Amino acid sequence: MSRDQQAVRTILEAVKSEGRSSLSSDEARELCQAYDIPTPGQGLATSADDAVSLSDSVGYPVVLKIESPDILHKTDAGGVIVGLTTADEVRDAFEEISANAKAYNASASISGVQVQQMLPAATEVIVGAVTDPTFGKLTAFGLGGTLVEVLGDMTFRLAPTPADQAMSMLDDISGAEVLAGIRGAAPVDRSALASIVENVGALVGDFPEIDELDLNPVMASSEGATAVDVRILTDFNPKPARFRPSHDDILSAMQRVMQPDGVAVIGASAEDGKIGNSVMKNLIDGGYEGEIYPIHPREEEILGRKCHASVTDVSGNIDIAIFCIPARFVAGVLAEVGQKGIAGAILIPSGFAEVGEHELQEEVVQAARDNNVRLMGPNIYGFYYTHKNLCATFCTPYDEKGSVALSSQSGGVGMAIIGFSRSAKMGVSAIVGLGNKSDIDEDDLLVYFEQDPNTEVIAMHVEDLKDGQAFAEVATRVSKTKPVVVLKAGRTSIGAKAANSHTGALAGDDRVYDSILKQSGVIRARSLNDLLEYARGLSVLPTPKGENILILTGAGGSGVLLSDACVDNDLTLMSMPDDLDAAFKEFIPPFGASGNPVDITGGEPPTTYRATIELALNDERIHSLVLGYWHTIITPPMVFAELLSEEVEAARNKGINKPVVVSLVGDVEVEEACRYLLDRDILAYPYTAEKPVAVLGAKYRWARSAGLL
Amino acid sequence: MSRDQQAVRTILEAVKSEGRSSLSSDEARELCQAYDIPTPGQGLATSADDAVSLSDSVGYPVVLKIESPDILHKTDAGGVIVGLTTADEVRDAFEEISANAKAYNASASISGVQVQQMLPAATEVIVGAVTDPTFGKLTAFGLGGTLVEVLGDMTFRLAPTPADQAMSMLDDISGAEVLAGIRGAAPVDRSALASIVENVGALVGDFPEIDELDLNPVMASSEGATAVDVRILTDFNPKPARFRPSHDDILSAMQRVMQPDGVAVIGASAEDGKIGNSVMKNLIDGGYEGEIYPIHPREEEILGRKCHASVTDVSGNIDIAIFCIPARFVAGVLAEVGQKGIAGAILIPSGFAEVGEHELQEEVVQAARDNNVRLMGPNIYGFYYTHKNLCATFCTPYDEKGSVALSSQSGGVGMAIIGFSRSAKMGVSAIVGLGNKSDIDEDDLLVYFEQDPNTEVIAMHVEDLKDGQAFAEVATRVSKTKPVVVLKAGRTSIGAKAANSHTGALAGDDRVYDSILKQSGVIRARSLNDLLEYARGLSVLPTPKGENILILTGAGGSGVLLSDACVDNDLTLMSMPDDLDAAFKEFIPPFGASGNPVDITGGEPPTTYRATIELALNDERIHSLVLGYWHTIITPPMVFAELLSEEVEAARNKGINKPVVVSLVGDVEVEEACRYLLDRDILAYPYTAEKPVAVLGAKYRWARSAGLL
Repeated sequence: MSRDQQAVRTILEAVKSEGRSSLSSDEARELCQAYDIPTPGQGLATSADDAVSLSDSVGYPVVLKIESPDILHKTDAGGVIVGLTTADEVRDAFEEISANAKAYNASASISGVQVQQMLPAATEVIVGAVTDPTFGKLTAFGLGGTLVEVLGDMTFRLAPTPADQAMSMLDDISGAEVLAGIRGAAPVDRSALASIVENVGALVGDFPEIDELDLNPVMASSEGATAVDVRILTDFNPKPARFRPSHDDILSAMQRVMQPDGVAVIGASAEDGKIGNSVMKNLIDGGYEGEIYPIHPREEEILGRKCHASVTDVSGNIDIAIFCIPARFVAGVLAEVGQKGIAGAILIPSGFAEVGEHELQEEVVQAARDNNVRLMGPNIYGFYYTHKNLCATFCTPYDEKGSVALSSQSGGVGMAIIGFSRSAKMGVSAIVGLGNKSDIDEDDLLVYFEQDPNTEVIAMHVEDLKDGQAFAEVATRVSKTKPVVVLKAGRTSIGAKAANSHTGALAGDDRVYDSILKQSGVIRARSLNDLLEYARGLSVLPTPKGENILILTGAGGSGVLLSDACVDNDLTLMSMPDDLDAAFKEFIPPFGASGNPVDITGGEPPTTYRATIELALNDERIHSLVLGYWHTIITPPMVFAELLSEEVEAARNKGINKPVVVSLVGDVEVEEACRYLLDRDILAYPYTAEKPVAVLGAKYRWARSAGLL
Repeated sequence: MSRDQQAVRTILEAVKSEGRSSLSSDEARELCQAYDIPTPGQGLATSADDAVSLSDSVGYPVVLKIESPDILHKTDAGGVIVGLTTADEVRDAFEEISANAKAYNASASISGVQVQQMLPAATEVIVGAVTDPTFGKLTAFGLGGTLVEVLGDMTFRLAPTPADQAMSMLDDISGAEVLAGIRGAAPVDRSALASIVENVGALVGDFPEIDELDLNPVMASSEGATAVDVRILTDFNPKPARFRPSHDDILSAMQRVMQPDGVAVIGASAEDGKIGNSVMKNLIDGGYEGEIYPIHPREEEILGRKCHASVTDVSGNIDIAIFCIPARFVAGVLAEVGQKGIAGAILIPSGFAEVGEHELQEEVVQAARDNNVRLMGPNIYGFYYTHKNLCATFCTPYDEKGSVALSSQSGGVGMAIIGFSRSAKMGVSAIVGLGNKSDIDEDDLLVYFEQDPNTEVIAMHVEDLKDGQAFAEVATRVSKTKPVVVLKAGRTSIGAKAANSHTGALAGDDRVYDSILKQSGVIRARSLNDLLEYARGLSVLPTPKGENILILTGAGGSGVLLSDACVDNDLTLMSMPDDLDAAFKEFIPPFGASGNPVDITGGEPPTTYRATIELALNDERIHSLVLGYWHTIITPPMVFAELLSEEVEAARNKGINKPVVVSLVGDVEVEEACRYLLDRDILAYPYTAEKPVAVLGAKYRWARSAGLL
């Protein structure tokens, strides 16, 4: 692969020196050639004779296009005529285009008319690159044509885009089937297309001043792919990158922040109702194992702990300082915090960027950086780290220890996390409020949770990523070993991003998030409840060893709903081997349905549930089990719950640990049965067939993306 | 509008008499002409000279197409050449097509080559008709082109299809924007397209022997629309229609069935654990107000009620007979049931069609029809009608009276309905098991619930509709006054429907259900939980007076999630009038956000919630209120719940009754607050922003479709 960086540099320097923000067609084409992106034979004609001789040389049929820096949308200007097969037609077309262009914009400067080889019929696709405000340089791929522009069926990847990623884009669009060749058409040359994406990614990666790039259309056939039209826009004043410490610096600071041995409370208070009082109480009542240092200019003692006027007066070691003082005093105290060698400041106060006080926040950020202190917040409820009994927050204490780490950008969502976790008995390792994210953000948390032995699953509520590239980079690595679930809020407010290219216009905020989160191995939750249920489910369910799902149900109607849900969640119903089918038939009535779902029918006693569940747990060809229980007098809910947990326990004792999810339909007693099962780490839900399967689906999405399946 | 039925009849009779199942191009085109469906000028050429003279007469450019009953897919056979502009080109094309056809299928009988006027560039659409196994004759509409075939973007309506329905199809496809004209194109002539759909619908309505019809493509421009290719398949042996009594007969029987004054229990038993015992107990313990007649050949008395050997021995009036005897005895007893003048038999026993015993079921159906008895079931749990304290079932009694009527095809789902209803305190008028639906089905229930003063909302779990046309007809009428919610299970098992046309192949089961349910005004639920939540929500929420939604929240983060949910549910965030904005600003802190959502911020006392809620309830421009509550120490959950219910109550007393839904995020105390609010008919949900908005969205979907907005 030849990539002529020097040729590109020369052209871009010319563009820059001339104060332009876009390349001419010729320049754009040269850039493509320098990066091995095929373009059709062509040339610029300044007269009709010129056009004819160029046509003779590139070969008929040809297409003629107006070439002017003042006319960006050539078709709208009547500046494109296609399918010219003779010299006479070319001559007429040249005159017509020139006249149209003058009529469209009399003052436009016309460079001439492009004469271009017209490619044989092929599938039109779009390849492009954009500079996303969140994720930076991205490549884009979609099918061409007006309909796709209407449906906006495009996918995105971080640039540079390696070959496997580029190839995955071809399968990632709704219309992917078209590329495989429909109605007798030959499939397109996939590697030729992927190679164009890869080269575009390399080009914008090497030259960040390329702001947007559009290859539209790219004509793809079984023979190869050629970029017919190329548009390139530049921006020589890119926005500065967000400050980002090295991985080791992040980790060493975050370890002290999340598991501190000494905590200072700046603005501690003895007065009920004050935030500095709530924080003190939560630290003490939560059973925090380290030292607690209330800081107050005048008090001697608060809640039985000796007070200091400043952190610098404390002789012991302090890892974090929790700020419970008004916004305007924060920056001033950060110098002392730095002087004391404190790793992190937990900024509970609001009154910063969220209310328009950007300068005040900037001042605090600068003070922290000057003093080598990491900031959490401001405008947060604080955070919890349960395995250290640490409740560094003004909210209620939380103590249900477990392996799920959660973060939220908003305080309200944080409270929902706490309430749900407590109510659903979700074991939690940490709950972190990120608020304004002036410094510590999701990628810092990921770096920490990645190596935290107490954390197995990470779930995050995100309104915006401050540094999408850093997030994607870390998430891609972390999600290989620990599931990362993200609820992206604000999906529907796309904002007024000025976009001058097709690709840019198609880059709706949410489509980009969707592509890049997927690329990063992140499981996306579509609702707050999904975020919480997935978090709990992913932590409870073992990783499946294969794709074979078996549905075993006492209610045929549930079996249908569970099957629907499996299809909706891309889960594969195992096709039943004959011997296994026969084995199930031994236990179920003759009118029950074997196959998959196995319908044991509603009137069966506990022994039938037990025998079929045991069979399903022990057969190695079944990788996951979806159970549908139907409340009957013969097998009441708690009887079912007990026999199921016995069977699962027995299997676990034999080293068999496959995902089991349960839908229970019946009268209110099924709620008690669900709680009983959840207490024994078996995921069970009342009155729904869809939720247990959705949670299992999330586990599968993660296992596949982590390469475990 | 001229419709020449005689011309169509003549052609179809010829097709039938020749034993064919498809029409020739010419015949198909004549049918179109007879029903005012425009087709291009054309003729059949049997020689190259012929083709040239035809081309001269229809006008260049022309397209040539092979015409053979043995070649259905002309393009695949190389049998189509387009864009012929001269006599020489036509001559060459004729020879080439003839040669291609021979190469493709040497034994094909060739009628000649169609010469067809080629229409100017236009938008390609597909119009068609199919015979759906559930809904019968349907018209279909979609965009043409391979991509749409891949995405399957089609919509369907019952045939005949009146003009307004035909017009609505144009907006019902994902690519609708294309028809409005994109990238400078003129919009297509919508009424020309709708008129083609209408005429197709009339044609297949008048001639049911037309099994499938394909106009593909129809070329649509701003000037009109022309069907370029027409394919018509026939079936002269349509399946017989399902038995359906008159509306009055349905109603008079259903009134006796659902609100009986006398109930016989066939196979009543004194023995615990027997179904005939459970049914007796449920009738008695449920407090049924009418007469109960246990029927048993030998017993004197069961549970204190006098027994009879046969219903014919009973002197009092009996409206329903609940069958608790084995399947094989059912048919025999139905004669006596008929003789006694009993309106309905409730067939609890299984062992019929669901286990392959189709003949036994057919025998029972025939016996019922011979004796003028309606059948519920077989294979059901029975039914409840709470306002008569009637528990005609072997399940547990249910007594939470209210206005929601529910039905389920499956017993398991029925039990989920009972459990959820009890747990969520959903007031219910009826719960009905339909099982095998050998006779009584959803449209019979709709006819009854339509006039039942105790029922305001109807929710149905459906696996298959036995008579889709009857359902659609009744649902269209009923849903205008009472919301009808349907969960269609088995969405993803499309089965192996043999389809010979494009339209047919696109008619996936679920796409058809989706179109027709929507056309019928039915609110579709996507999950069991949605069915139940929508049912409850629709019965609790008043009908909104307009589209203006206001979000009022104590948590900015909830506001974002609630806004996302509004967009997802097609709800309109009111744009805030200046005076109202100013009014809200008076109550909220300066850093709070007015506009919409109104963010009162998290630290506010109850007075702020109260004042802003009162303002929102009383301003007539706000039609519905979405509240986001954030748990704080300053305004705890129960304080919020109490003040909200006081405000809503005060508004209701003033005659202001607008929809209010609430999302509560916080610690577990929010669950108690939700229960408190639900008890006062205010829809409130913990730990979710999406569910309350989805339920509000369902209410809006219904109100719009019923023409109330």
